[in-house]
Amino acid sequence: MPVLRAESDSMGIIEVAADRYWGAQTQRSILNFPIGVSRFRWQRPIIRALGLLKRAAAEANAELGELPVDLAALISRAADEVIAGSLDEHFPLVVFQTGSGTQSNMNANEVISNRAIELAGGILGSKQPVHPNDHVNRGQSSNDTFPTAMHIAVVEEMQHRLLPALIRLRETLHAKSCEHIALVKTGRTHLQDATPITLGQEIGAWVSQLDFGMATLRGTLPGLHDLAIGGTAVGTGLNAHPDFGAATAARIAALTGQPFRSADDKFFALAAHDALVNCSAALRTLAGGLMKMANDVRWLASGPRCGIGELTIPENEPGSSIMPGKINPTQCEALTMVCVQVFGNDAAVAFAGSQGNFQLNVYKPVMVHNVLESMTLLADACDAFHDHCAVGIEPARERIADLLARNLMLVTALNRHIGYDKAAEIAKKAHKEGSTLQAAALALGYVDEAQFAQWMVPLEMTRPSMA
Amino acid sequence: MPVLRAESDSMGIIEVAADRYWGAQTQRSILNFPIGVSRFRWQRPIIRALGLLKRAAAEANAELGELPVDLAALISRAADEVIAGSLDEHFPLVVFQTGSGTQSNMNANEVISNRAIELAGGILGSKQPVHPNDHVNRGQSSNDTFPTAMHIAVVEEMQHRLLPALIRLRETLHAKSCEHIALVKTGRTHLQDATPITLGQEIGAWVSQLDFGMATLRGTLPGLHDLAIGGTAVGTGLNAHPDFGAATAARIAALTGQPFRSADDKFFALAAHDALVNCSAALRTLAGGLMKMANDVRWLASGPRCGIGELTIPENEPGSSIMPGKINPTQCEALTMVCVQVFGNDAAVAFAGSQGNFQLNVYKPVMVHNVLESMTLLADACDAFHDHCAVGIEPARERIADLLARNLMLVTALNRHIGYDKAAEIAKKAHKEGSTLQAAALALGYVDEAQFAQWMVPLEMTRPSMA
Amino acid sequence: MPVLRAESDSMGIIEVAADRYWGAQTQRSILNFPIGVSRFRWQRPIIRALGLLKRAAAEANAELGELPVDLAALISRAADEVIAGSLDEHFPLVVFQTGSGTQSNMNANEVISNRAIELAGGILGSKQPVHPNDHVNRGQSSNDTFPTAMHIAVVEEMQHRLLPALIRLRETLHAKSCEHIALVKTGRTHLQDATPITLGQEIGAWVSQLDFGMATLRGTLPGLHDLAIGGTAVGTGLNAHPDFGAATAARIAALTGQPFRSADDKFFALAAHDALVNCSAALRTLAGGLMKMANDVRWLASGPRCGIGELTIPENEPGSSIMPGKINPTQCEALTMVCVQVFGNDAAVAFAGSQGNFQLNVYKPVMVHNVLESMTLLADACDAFHDHCAVGIEPARERIADLLARNLMLVTALNRHIGYDKAAEIAKKAHKEGSTLQAAALALGYVDEAQFAQWMVPLEMTRPSMA
Amino acid sequence: MPVLRAESDSMGIIEVAADRYWGAQTQRSILNFPIGVSRFRWQRPIIRALGLLKRAAAEANAELGELPVDLAALISRAADEVIAGSLDEHFPLVVFQTGSGTQSNMNANEVISNRAIELAGGILGSKQPVHPNDHVNRGQSSNDTFPTAMHIAVVEEMQHRLLPALIRLRETLHAKSCEHIALVKTGRTHLQDATPITLGQEIGAWVSQLDFGMATLRGTLPGLHDLAIGGTAVGTGLNAHPDFGAATAARIAALTGQPFRSADDKFFALAAHDALVNCSAALRTLAGGLMKMANDVRWLASGPRCGIGELTIPENEPGSSIMPGKINPTQCEALTMVCVQVFGNDAAVAFAGSQGNFQLNVYKPVMVHNVLESMTLLADACDAFHDHCAVGIEPARERIADLLARNLMLVTALNRHIGYDKAAEIAKKAHKEGSTLQAAALALGYVDEAQFAQWMVPLEMTRPSMA
Repeated sequence: MPVLRAESDSMGIIEVAADRYWGAQTQRSILNFPIGVSRFRWQRPIIRALGLLKRAAAEANAELGELPVDLAALISRAADEVIAGSLDEHFPLVVFQTGSGTQSNMNANEVISNRAIELAGGILGSKQPVHPNDHVNRGQSSNDTFPTAMHIAVVEEMQHRLLPALIRLRETLHAKSCEHIALVKTGRTHLQDATPITLGQEIGAWVSQLDFGMATLRGTLPGLHDLAIGGTAVGTGLNAHPDFGAATAARIAALTGQPFRSADDKFFALAAHDALVNCSAALRTLAGGLMKMANDVRWLASGPRCGIGELTIPENEPGSSIMPGKINPTQCEALTMVCVQVFGNDAAVAFAGSQGNFQLNVYKPVMVHNVLESMTLLADACDAFHDHCAVGIEPARERIADLLARNLMLVTALNRHIGYDKAAEIAKKAHKEGSTLQAAALALGYVDEAQFAQWMVPLEMTRPSMA
Repeated sequence: MPVLRAESDSMGIIEVAADRYWGAQTQRSILNFPIGVSRFRWQRPIIRALGLLKRAAAEANAELGELPVDLAALISRAADEVIAGSLDEHFPLVVFQTGSGTQSNMNANEVISNRAIELAGGILGSKQPVHPNDHVNRGQSSNDTFPTAMHIAVVEEMQHRLLPALIRLRETLHAKSCEHIALVKTGRTHLQDATPITLGQEIGAWVSQLDFGMATLRGTLPGLHDLAIGGTAVGTGLNAHPDFGAATAARIAALTGQPFRSADDKFFALAAHDALVNCSAALRTLAGGLMKMANDVRWLASGPRCGIGELTIPENEPGSSIMPGKINPTQCEALTMVCVQVFGNDAAVAFAGSQGNFQLNVYKPVMVHNVLESMTLLADACDAFHDHCAVGIEPARERIADLLARNLMLVTALNRHIGYDKAAEIAKKAHKEGSTLQAAALALGYVDEAQFAQWMVPLEMTRPSMA
Repeated sequence: MPVLRAESDSMGIIEVAADRYWGAQTQRSILNFPIGVSRFRWQRPIIRALGLLKRAAAEANAELGELPVDLAALISRAADEVIAGSLDEHFPLVVFQTGSGTQSNMNANEVISNRAIELAGGILGSKQPVHPNDHVNRGQSSNDTFPTAMHIAVVEEMQHRLLPALIRLRETLHAKSCEHIALVKTGRTHLQDATPITLGQEIGAWVSQLDFGMATLRGTLPGLHDLAIGGTAVGTGLNAHPDFGAATAARIAALTGQPFRSADDKFFALAAHDALVNCSAALRTLAGGLMKMANDVRWLASGPRCGIGELTIPENEPGSSIMPGKINPTQCEALTMVCVQVFGNDAAVAFAGSQGNFQLNVYKPVMVHNVLESMTLLADACDAFHDHCAVGIEPARERIADLLARNLMLVTALNRHIGYDKAAEIAKKAHKEGSTLQAAALALGYVDEAQFAQWMVPLEMTRPSMA
Repeated sequence: MPVLRAESDSMGIIEVAADRYWGAQTQRSILNFPIGVSRFRWQRPIIRALGLLKRAAAEANAELGELPVDLAALISRAADEVIAGSLDEHFPLVVFQTGSGTQSNMNANEVISNRAIELAGGILGSKQPVHPNDHVNRGQSSNDTFPTAMHIAVVEEMQHRLLPALIRLRETLHAKSCEHIALVKTGRTHLQDATPITLGQEIGAWVSQLDFGMATLRGTLPGLHDLAIGGTAVGTGLNAHPDFGAATAARIAALTGQPFRSADDKFFALAAHDALVNCSAALRTLAGGLMKMANDVRWLASGPRCGIGELTIPENEPGSSIMPGKINPTQCEALTMVCVQVFGNDAAVAFAGSQGNFQLNVYKPVMVHNVLESMTLLADACDAFHDHCAVGIEPARERIADLLARNLMLVTALNRHIGYDKAAEIAKKAHKEGSTLQAAALALGYVDEAQFAQWMVPLEMTRPSMA
């Protein structure tokens, strides 16, 4: 049987496992919200962000004369442990709780308070000398702390986890694009054979789309740098020092190296989370681009003999339990499943974002959860796709050459020389007879052999600026 | 300058074009809601449904002694014109109005009132002898009439427009499936070559999916047959005869030939429109199936030389303004764009459906609009796809045979005879050397020529029950 | 350092922790798909379903003479442990893997094979006497086993987890509805005061919506009862006994008590998962209804003094870290956040469902994951809402009476007696002067005191059939 | 019977109404795509954009020596009529056509060609002296022209229609915010009474959200300024002069006054439309903000007697056909229905955006259609909301004062003076006894009358910086 400790809040006394730092309100939340417990506990990004915020707030309060310096120092030490991750097991709460994130804010307050009390040699649960509300939550409300933590968590996850993964994938693809910049192949529009491009150009379009996605993502940062802290319960900042928001934001910026600042309109910062909605939308745009790339890869690698087969991809596992020799584009499948999940997560975020009332949006936890989950999944999936697929993408040169040679759309190269109508006639003849363009062109008498050889140079069709 | 007529409501007098039957409330709505006017006026299904409802209500009221028989007859005559469509130009209002559809209910009341007055030789706008509220809207409220009209419109559109279009497409595909039931071809999983199937089986899966989609759609009918009529303003039926709802529903059933009935819980019928949400979801399921089918068709028809090329589809138009001889799967493209639109429309419907408060959901017009639009688009697109694509889908037999012969996955036929591991070895050898399965199998000595011929019969691989 | 064991597959040898039953393919998947590992491992429903399927398949194969009886018995014993949950830690794989669920199918094959080998006194990894492919996966492919497991898991979770939770909530609300069936209160439409209803009627509409949602959910069961098993790789059933699908489905039905059966069209069963899409849509409909109910509850409980305040709900925790005495509708918030998540999950499912190609949809894992997660979250949230909110919902009788008395819309009761226009005049006068309806009615001389008392009985306005 | 004219294309001759300028390919599209004809014809923005593009292209070609100057001048004159709108009835095609927009590009080519021929005194359909392909479409492909027109249309609609409407609404709300900057009222969080704010602050948060939404929208402009023109069929620019893209984009910039430019990566510009996806997402963010504002307005105006009732809004129409005197927030309802539609449209756009393959995304028409429709609807709805609601929003001062006086959360003002616990005790006592805070505070002896008066100043609670 676990040893228990009494903790109390304004509703009275409740027992908590003695080896846990959390207090009464956290314990009540455990009992009241047993929802999705095995999957929806907060993870590192939010816990770390709450630690960063609580340390910054303590220091700001101390500087502004709102908190004794020694208490602030105790809070900072305990908060540092939260930041570092050594107290993660003391954050047992799940996403589906109070819509303001109140209980997770109190979880942080209680854990930091009790850990600070312990550091000071006090008694856990005594609220002496460090009170969870009066000291750790000094000048704060869940309504401004939780959205502040949301922004910190999202910005850090974007900068330290997602963007590096995307950049790594982008660089590998960019290198492939450069490597194959002159490898001519069939272009395809409407899934139909089209005029030639180079493999480098084809891969380059994926790189451009990734670049655009990353730019979109980075474009949401200014909104995310605006912090609600200082608004307290409804945005007026009641019970906080007038300079508290700015001072805390400045410390958070210093601690994280990210340009966080106090939001201009705290009422807006509590009542709506459009910066998160935008971030989620950017993740969706990115997912759309990754989906297109992954689909291109698996189609180009389709076969081995009855598909397009212009690319080969690494064999990572036996593909089927029944069909020997079959290798499936499993990394593409995992990545596109992640993309689909990101679309779903984004739908949840945008829906939640529209449901604010008056001074508060009470869908905060589900919003930040989905944004963080999408970022983690995209980063993980990009890493896996990079390591187990992208690095090993290779052209099947023979197949590419074979298909290119058969592509009737090369006839377009003749348009400028013999006109659209005659070129069309050649293509239709070759199509009908199953012959080559050259045979059809010569048979029709529209070009001679030398002209055909001079005009029909696929690589030149991909470099109009050199024409 | 148009001749004007004075119309009045509880807010006072307002001028209306003299040649229009509508009255004051319709006119106010025109002025107050100039939103999407060029695209979002109500169309036939809703106008007809309002006519059906108003006729049924008048007859029910007359029978129940709530309305003089002669007035009811006048209302019925005017309503018949609404039903028939000859008064459509007198319904100028758009979707984006009051969320209960009040103004469109009043539009029907006013038009029918004025047309009935005209039939009776009275003066338009006089409300004598047929009053829009006291007579045409007798025992009704917008809150129960509009959702009643919604259900009528959706059921009729489903039965008379969408399902026939789906059935026609289904029958054509079913015939193709039967025709090609023994035409063996390469199966594909993970976009990779797989064991053989027949083209009939492949097309049959599309038919099954269409059948499943239609069954899903029909499964939403019972909910749609429940009518709100009789609930009046909040569901209590205040100011309506207790038997009015049932009597009206019975008449609507008789007029339409559909088993409409009075809803058991009128409070639910006003406050939520989950039957519509379900119908929208069924349309989405159907759209998902059509998308899969259309994608299969265009991939199987991809090429002509650098794709899969197992199917040919009709050439309906020049495919490109620059590339001669190229034929694009344009019907697949139009159909999949419709499917994507249906997904979007459905998202709007479900969102709207969740936003009711207390005794009323005030997103009624946008919900029914999207359901009707999705049905129209799907029906139109299925018809176009049927006429200009499905009927002309033909196998490219030579290509199919060629790809099948090269498909390494035929080796699976040997599993039962020589075991999984040896079969895999044969396939890998053939793959590596670019050779045929037969060559590899004989070279490895796992089978002799006679065994190979006996065991490797693709058609038998598609009919395990005959094995 | 962990002790390792060599396992092998067609790609060669790979080391696995000696105390784990899984084999080479599972181990490769761990290395290849480190995506969302902390949150996306498969949980009980899927693992149990795979166990049920493998036991049923072994027994069916034995009966059909495809597997020695002793091997089948060993497989059944090992599968029973998978079913019971004692081997859950041997299922380390995540959702984002091969899109056919191949690796999880192999995970089950490998774990059952090794555990069966152990039971037989054999050597783990030896594949003797029970081979993961040749015996455990006999007559199967990932392409038919995984969708079979998907349906089993979803049906069981619906029957044993979600529906019971919904029924419990429904019964409690139904009892509240009955209890307050004569408690008259203000109705509200357009958020505006409307004619009276009873609290029982208001709560009854929530019950009806829950009933409708449950009926929608149950309506998806027939599609879910169709199992893909027997289709093997592409739907033809190649390498399975012709009766294997039906025999296995019959055993699964017997083991679960649910009417599972072999799907008519196996090609459809592999290439599309519309039954899952429908189930997801039903969960969305249900979530829409729960959202409406939860919103009604929190609005009716809004205040305590500056809102509507007609209901009181339990106080479960201190509401705010700064505002003393404030009690927030936290269960409503958690539930509506779950609803929003279900909407997002559903968007992912439907998107994934549309992306099949040819003989396979390779979004299987993400589809079933989202459906199961939505069911778990809804069940958990309904339980929490039931225990910590619904059971304690009570009318604030004084407030209800006070608001009702002030509600101008009671005037509608006079419509039938003095006509619409005079009733409107009374209401407008009272509104303008801030007086009661009675005062205004008497002042205007349209009724006398006795008539007013006789005609203006709010309870009768809620029971039109008694008028 | 209409007089007909023969037109031809590479498929042969087809008859067209003699009074129409379009040619063979447009006519074929009319016959092949009768999908949603009554609602989905292209409107002004796309037609105008095609006109702008064709004029710019002709001028660029002339300057680059690719087109005789006299032909370019004829094309420009005809294009000017397209730009101006006088030829709109010659654009009969709908959204659901070829996914590249090919037929609408050809529609523009054919109309401009025939009108230019007419201006030159030639014979319609003769393609002399101005050929639709060789001259009007010179150096172009549908694959680069249509996405170019998409961007032009969206940028112009945003700049000239949506942003002005938003700014007008923003300015009116901003003025209201300034007007009521010192009008103290109850704040609300979790729908519960919270500490006071001013009405100006509350409205100011709506203004901030609008500002954020507009900034988000404007942030998508750089992506939209990148034009695909110059890429021709697959992105290589084959058959166009190397400087054609830049020269045409420069002319479009000059014609529109918007900083359009030639896209850096034409392959990306054809294969993906992420700039449109981002624009759609920005519209969704904006819709989310408008939804929150409209919901706030209608809740604050709820009543008249049984709701919150802190705001009054204009009476625009009789609210109900049955309830006299009831005024509904109809503009809020129309606006929120538009917001819901925008969410749905956005889902379609993002889905479509993910479905590109290889060198082309063939969901172009449905993407631009939804973005344009969302912009039109938002602009129209904002205008209607502005004119018929926002301008008339007024505080119900008496009600605001009454609720504020009863708000227990004012007790928070005492926290800093007597501590959190005593303040909570006062609030709980007042809540329990239904008394005022002052009565409870004095009874408990925690403050005297003078202190209460001095410390309890609601306006000061809204201005912490002045505390």
